[in-house]
Amino acid sequence: MIDVITFGEALYRLTPPNFQTISQASSFDYFLGGSEANTAVGLARLGLKSLWLSRLTDNALGRRMAEALQGQGVDTSRIIWTDQDRIGLYFMEEGAPPRDSQVIYDRANSSMSKINAHHIPVDLFQPNYARLFHTTGITLALSGSALGATQRAWDLARSRGYQLSFDLNHRQKLWTAEACNSASQPFLETAHLIFIAYRDAQNVLAIDGTPDDTLRELHQRYPQALIALTQGADGASTVNPAGEIRHQSAFTAQPIGRIGGGDAFSAGFLYGYLTDADPLRWAVATAAIKYTLSGDMPLITQPMVERLLNQQAGTGVIR
Amino acid sequence: MIDVITFGEALYRLTPPNFQTISQASSFDYFLGGSEANTAVGLARLGLKSLWLSRLTDNALGRRMAEALQGQGVDTSRIIWTDQDRIGLYFMEEGAPPRDSQVIYDRANSSMSKINAHHIPVDLFQPNYARLFHTTGITLALSGSALGATQRAWDLARSRGYQLSFDLNHRQKLWTAEACNSASQPFLETAHLIFIAYRDAQNVLAIDGTPDDTLRELHQRYPQALIALTQGADGASTVNPAGEIRHQSAFTAQPIGRIGGGDAFSAGFLYGYLTDADPLRWAVATAAIKYTLSGDMPLITQPMVERLLNQQAGTGVIR
Amino acid sequence: MIDVITFGEALYRLTPPNFQTISQASSFDYFLGGSEANTAVGLARLGLKSLWLSRLTDNALGRRMAEALQGQGVDTSRIIWTDQDRIGLYFMEEGAPPRDSQVIYDRANSSMSKINAHHIPVDLFQPNYARLFHTTGITLALSGSALGATQRAWDLARSRGYQLSFDLNHRQKLWTAEACNSASQPFLETAHLIFIAYRDAQNVLAIDGTPDDTLRELHQRYPQALIALTQGADGASTVNPAGEIRHQSAFTAQPIGRIGGGDAFSAGFLYGYLTDADPLRWAVATAAIKYTLSGDMPLITQPMVERLLNQQAGTGVIR
Amino acid sequence: MIDVITFGEALYRLTPPNFQTISQASSFDYFLGGSEANTAVGLARLGLKSLWLSRLTDNALGRRMAEALQGQGVDTSRIIWTDQDRIGLYFMEEGAPPRDSQVIYDRANSSMSKINAHHIPVDLFQPNYARLFHTTGITLALSGSALGATQRAWDLARSRGYQLSFDLNHRQKLWTAEACNSASQPFLETAHLIFIAYRDAQNVLAIDGTPDDTLRELHQRYPQALIALTQGADGASTVNPAGEIRHQSAFTAQPIGRIGGGDAFSAGFLYGYLTDADPLRWAVATAAIKYTLSGDMPLITQPMVERLLNQQAGTGVIR
Amino acid sequence: MIDVITFGEALYRLTPPNFQTISQASSFDYFLGGSEANTAVGLARLGLKSLWLSRLTDNALGRRMAEALQGQGVDTSRIIWTDQDRIGLYFMEEGAPPRDSQVIYDRANSSMSKINAHHIPVDLFQPNYARLFHTTGITLALSGSALGATQRAWDLARSRGYQLSFDLNHRQKLWTAEACNSASQPFLETAHLIFIAYRDAQNVLAIDGTPDDTLRELHQRYPQALIALTQGADGASTVNPAGEIRHQSAFTAQPIGRIGGGDAFSAGFLYGYLTDADPLRWAVATAAIKYTLSGDMPLITQPMVERLLNQQAGTGVIR
Amino acid sequence: MIDVITFGEALYRLTPPNFQTISQASSFDYFLGGSEANTAVGLARLGLKSLWLSRLTDNALGRRMAEALQGQGVDTSRIIWTDQDRIGLYFMEEGAPPRDSQVIYDRANSSMSKINAHHIPVDLFQPNYARLFHTTGITLALSGSALGATQRAWDLARSRGYQLSFDLNHRQKLWTAEACNSASQPFLETAHLIFIAYRDAQNVLAIDGTPDDTLRELHQRYPQALIALTQGADGASTVNPAGEIRHQSAFTAQPIGRIGGGDAFSAGFLYGYLTDADPLRWAVATAAIKYTLSGDMPLITQPMVERLLNQQAGTGVIR
Repeated sequence: MIDVITFGEALYRLTPPNFQTISQASSFDYFLGGSEANTAVGLARLGLKSLWLSRLTDNALGRRMAEALQGQGVDTSRIIWTDQDRIGLYFMEEGAPPRDSQVIYDRANSSMSKINAHHIPVDLFQPNYARLFHTTGITLALSGSALGATQRAWDLARSRGYQLSFDLNHRQKLWTAEACNSASQPFLETAHLIFIAYRDAQNVLAIDGTPDDTLRELHQRYPQALIALTQGADGASTVNPAGEIRHQSAFTAQPIGRIGGGDAFSAGFLYGYLTDADPLRWAVATAAIKYTLSGDMPLITQPMVERLLNQQAGTGVIR
Repeated sequence: MIDVITFGEALYRLTPPNFQTISQASSFDYFLGGSEANTAVGLARLGLKSLWLSRLTDNALGRRMAEALQGQGVDTSRIIWTDQDRIGLYFMEEGAPPRDSQVIYDRANSSMSKINAHHIPVDLFQPNYARLFHTTGITLALSGSALGATQRAWDLARSRGYQLSFDLNHRQKLWTAEACNSASQPFLETAHLIFIAYRDAQNVLAIDGTPDDTLRELHQRYPQALIALTQGADGASTVNPAGEIRHQSAFTAQPIGRIGGGDAFSAGFLYGYLTDADPLRWAVATAAIKYTLSGDMPLITQPMVERLLNQQAGTGVIR
Repeated sequence: MIDVITFGEALYRLTPPNFQTISQASSFDYFLGGSEANTAVGLARLGLKSLWLSRLTDNALGRRMAEALQGQGVDTSRIIWTDQDRIGLYFMEEGAPPRDSQVIYDRANSSMSKINAHHIPVDLFQPNYARLFHTTGITLALSGSALGATQRAWDLARSRGYQLSFDLNHRQKLWTAEACNSASQPFLETAHLIFIAYRDAQNVLAIDGTPDDTLRELHQRYPQALIALTQGADGASTVNPAGEIRHQSAFTAQPIGRIGGGDAFSAGFLYGYLTDADPLRWAVATAAIKYTLSGDMPLITQPMVERLLNQQAGTGVIR
Repeated sequence: MIDVITFGEALYRLTPPNFQTISQASSFDYFLGGSEANTAVGLARLGLKSLWLSRLTDNALGRRMAEALQGQGVDTSRIIWTDQDRIGLYFMEEGAPPRDSQVIYDRANSSMSKINAHHIPVDLFQPNYARLFHTTGITLALSGSALGATQRAWDLARSRGYQLSFDLNHRQKLWTAEACNSASQPFLETAHLIFIAYRDAQNVLAIDGTPDDTLRELHQRYPQALIALTQGADGASTVNPAGEIRHQSAFTAQPIGRIGGGDAFSAGFLYGYLTDADPLRWAVATAAIKYTLSGDMPLITQPMVERLLNQQAGTGVIR
Repeated sequence: MIDVITFGEALYRLTPPNFQTISQASSFDYFLGGSEANTAVGLARLGLKSLWLSRLTDNALGRRMAEALQGQGVDTSRIIWTDQDRIGLYFMEEGAPPRDSQVIYDRANSSMSKINAHHIPVDLFQPNYARLFHTTGITLALSGSALGATQRAWDLARSRGYQLSFDLNHRQKLWTAEACNSASQPFLETAHLIFIAYRDAQNVLAIDGTPDDTLRELHQRYPQALIALTQGADGASTVNPAGEIRHQSAFTAQPIGRIGGGDAFSAGFLYGYLTDADPLRWAVATAAIKYTLSGDMPLITQPMVERLLNQQAGTGVIR
Repeated sequence: MIDVITFGEALYRLTPPNFQTISQASSFDYFLGGSEANTAVGLARLGLKSLWLSRLTDNALGRRMAEALQGQGVDTSRIIWTDQDRIGLYFMEEGAPPRDSQVIYDRANSSMSKINAHHIPVDLFQPNYARLFHTTGITLALSGSALGATQRAWDLARSRGYQLSFDLNHRQKLWTAEACNSASQPFLETAHLIFIAYRDAQNVLAIDGTPDDTLRELHQRYPQALIALTQGADGASTVNPAGEIRHQSAFTAQPIGRIGGGDAFSAGFLYGYLTDADPLRWAVATAAIKYTLSGDMPLITQPMVERLLNQQAGTGVIR
């Protein structure tokens, strides 16, 4: 039995080392990531059983991706392998304020963007086989067929009684806010858990006002869901189906790896949600620790989070 | 006035360092290359004026490519910039015998593969503006529209009285031998200079027999051309329009960078052809030195080749 | 169901980069290895199901070891975790002839050396659960309790009808030839498969004569076994229980990583033995490819071996 | 036609990586720089035509320098090549507060320090060929003959009606404040543009008082010039020939590369001065972005500066 | 004649680069350290004669350690070499708040932990040969025999009239606070100089209250000693045998290398104590500079400290 | 008491990594060397007492040089420190056949080239303080004053009865063969030991013929000396004052670091000469091992040489 199935694309991130630009560098460090893969890794490291469902080209790049997730304990046995297409990439020049980090997406025509509804393995979605299905708006943005495949998997999961989790996760370089809004509604309206950034609530869902205003409006629109609103340095808040609002301040973190914080948040939240822990506090703490780790994946264990939640961490060298 | 216009695609090569596989590495060294770009660089370093004609996506990766060629003295002012498409890549795991080097091409939908005949800048092809136009079978293989663009440029160059140079350069991961053969015939039949590997003469042109047999058969088919047949560790031979055959043995080289030897050969040959030097000897020597250089580009100067041809090189440390 | 259980210690190898000595370096590259772990990885990469049985300290070093094997597809679910002891290390200064590579073992008191017969999980050894059990003389050398644990596991495997495989693998820095000889006899006398280096046959088993003489003498002593005698650059030979001798020449290889060739040999042999392939040819080919890979583990797939056996490999860059 | 000719020395900076001292390191990262070369690169990247006039030794180090500038679009066709002398170097141990960065200059007897007035190519200074000539006090400090050459070039530029730009740029390890003051006066008194650090105004020109006092005094002394006074974290101010004072606050920047900020300031200022942009704001913004880039050169494009000036930058990862 | 003999263990620190975890890295940077070795190096760099007394395994790792200290000017002629045992290691994952740096000690059974009282070279302790003997609580924690050896050396030094210096330096991963307290008393009660961290005063000596309270209590207990209480970001204080308390604020430092600050403090203090300088100010300044240096050793010279004490440092690049 | 005083310049070698050219690299590995410093290190590592006499600029580069030699056990207490001048450098692009390694010397005006006869510390040359004085033709080539200083030191050593050793070591980038020949004669005519390369015997001393012919002619000219003629891959020969000729074949070595082989030869020879060992065999073996070590210095110990001489080395991994 699996705790969480995540569904989405994995990517290679290629980054010049030491804040160099592509114009200066002669090598790329590479990191493996992708929002739903990151969350699957986080869940596995925290001790739950996660399975990552995706479509991957069967070459050295694709196999390396599977090895990395498998090494972290993610179930990769249901990856849909193909000899066609390619592995998605993105190049990132890491900036420092006031120079933004710049991303060049090179993920068009990837094996996952070419997935369609017929690829979805119906036999995976056995009743009681998994507890929760998680995906994000990035998967919807990959292509029309990927959107169709996501809808198919979502419906299968729903029909089997799995919990449904959706992270809006708008990517402006992939599609417009309007397209994101439109495609996301069926997912938002049926999800048990919704993750959304405050900025995306404004830009994509066109909700104005303070975080609390925003939570109330989200509750109006999606009253069935437990909704988490992430607010960057201001922490995060939730509203539950009863309309109750809670807030958790962020833990101060020295940023080493800026990518993947939101995915770590989801991992921490889902961990708390599926165990006896407090989802919001675990989410915020897991995200804080992620910022101190290089790479995209939240290689975080329970004791690391517990130390932070118990205010024992951050005091220096343990020796 | 330009000596040589080369026409083709430039690529990023991404290679795990130190003979590692992609499964082992955590970074890629990257090298800029592409057959016609390499030849343009070689010509510029050897002292001729070369211009590289291509189509490039205007992002950090594309600009870096232009900067690299410009830094080596290649005229990049006629690059056709676009906001569309992507920069072609290839991943290479460097092997050691008996493990082959493995290439994963990721060049589909590149800006150069999307070039078409209308993109070719007619005004570039002024009479007497350039002396020679060079391209390879790789450009033909990129796409149907690239083939059309190449034919357009070739015809323009021909109509202006430029010398025409064609390197067959079959890539089995891009197209079949049959397709290569068929598409190349118009170029082979009108070229003043032909470069062809002994292996490709067999596999693509279906010519059997010894190198000398092959040269004779090539001369039968393309009597108008000076034809260079490269034979790897056995050196290279030429047959001229008069049917005269010459041979040059290879110079022993310790291989540091295996990629780009053929392009260096072309650069050395064209240099000799356009100056008073011996094309075949310069070609073989330039290729030998290239094998001792990392990266794809022949960063080779006249004195380096002259030292080798004068048998002064290879004796150790000059201090 | 598992194809092969391997039993032994995993180690961190710490090596100064670029042939530097410890006196010159300021960093160590590290590689994960250990004879039986390497063989388990090789088997998994070749497509069989392998399980690695060992005892590991539950800290970041131990977990990293398990992640690496798990990522390569080895079943690590039966690792015996402990909060005690330490992870074994060895430092290696990579030499170049005539300077030998120097190993400093730092593996005393490791968690695996502290294993004892009571740690062996009896429930793992179900009838028909695995097909073959493999270990080496290195495990016997770790400590008296490790020898006892090995005997216990060996007897359990034997009682369940598993095939038994033993690689003598003498390490002179761990124990004397005499001690190795004495401890190994019960394993040699009951093994279905024996791996032994020609040098060890001389030094440990005190067998003189040519390889063929040696095989005949080994067959006399251990008539029940299929015995493989490895002879370095001279390839390898086998003698089967019928007394038939076969020889396989070595494939020429450019050595990138000298460590782990014997373990790759075992992996290739066991793969052939448990499938329809030729064990000796697969063993020699797998070892040859291993020499071209950095690190200790044979990250080798079936197509790589098949290409070499079909004489298609080694011709250069495949593009 | 050229927009700006800059005149000065280029240097190799050799820096131990990762804040190491020379005593700890075993390699040097190297960066190419030199105040006037940096400014030429900045101008070229911002879209103007710049030419760098200097004298370089014709060896691999000198050629690499020219290639780097040429790759960034600087016109290097008028470099004065010589077989004599050497390329200037400096070693820098990068400090962190309270440990200062330490520079060991090793630039004596460089090819540029050996330049003299006879080397200046008179034919370069055609009327209307360039719009502006820029140099700094560092060039004056190199040697007596370099001072003479600078005076010669300055006079030629002046006689052709070019705008004249001078950055005082005192280097205490090259000469005394008194010598700098004395040698600089003819340039200060005839420049159209003057750049001066607040600290240098105090130490070299012996002007006391607040920045505004200093600007007023500078205006008194050099009433013909538009004068920019840089004030580090406090931004910069200008006084124009009409005596009008303006101030621009600094943009907060995370310092990645501390070297070259002043040269970037000049590049931004000259860009604004020669186009319709605001020189002071462009100067301060360009300098801020430079601090976030490793290396000495301001590899900065118009969109990067415009984003900062439009307050769109610094918000994170653009994806 | 020697100024200071330090007595203790030296270790290899193995750290994944760039804040990576062991799970992510493929190499370890290594640094040589150990509290008493660090202090010996600091003293030698500051200009005093220091001798490091220890026991080292005679292999490449041990010899490298001696070479490093000797290169920094420490007298290593009295190292007690052995063919037995091993060199102590520790692995450190460098954290960033709120993720703590994690240490895995792997120093059990090291050559220094196996030292015993009989190993102490009595002939080293000549009257007037050295001025001061320094050790720390870490040495006491290594083993019972190491404690015995320390007592032996301490008594010899005392009987020869050397000054005695003791740094409590509790390591919770080596022993309990109670064990540390008990073993340290004989040293605290006879030391002329005591170094103790405020945190250790609380946890090990069970002294509550403010730093001033703590100093007063320490003076009560060990009235014979000059006692330095280190308080991290709050600087440090001393109480002398006359009961006079002094305080020195910390100098702000950007932390590059967090390890070894306390040992640098001791080196600075002992330097001041044995010369005419102010021990407390030199100690605090030396520690501040150490934080800006990578590695464990305080590679700090007199001019660096003097610049800081004279408030000339920290202003930027000196060129 | 010192066994050998060596006298000469030390240099930083700056080399692009991995066979890159300066045009390709972005960092330099650096190595410390210099012929006489290398020989001093080799002697110290082999167990003799060596002192390196030189003049060094007192900056971070100079101090690092002294630390490196001191760390290897060389007596650096008599270095003549100065605040003037600079540390000599050379850049080397490492070639692979047929591309030669290229050296750019940048050693003019170094502190050692500015040494003069008055700098020589007369008090160092006490009778019986040292056994042998060694220098090379490189020191003579540095400058006229350096030649004078060498003559002064040589005469002092001679007058105190030290053995005198001279290595001709012609550097064509420093001076002509004629100048080398002329300056060297006084040293050759008074040396007890002469080292000379076969190539230098031809080019500098104008001796034609086979190695044996050359030895006979050298014996004619310098009958007082034991003369070693190095012949690269053909090994080396000696002729003694009795006119007896001996030859030693070279040991096959995989070249990792080509620089410093001759200096290692001298170290091995002098070691044998001053102990009971065979000078020629030790010289050839020490040189062979040096070729397998990166960097310039012969970090070689007695057991390494003895293993090779006893034909135990070169068989692989010792574990």
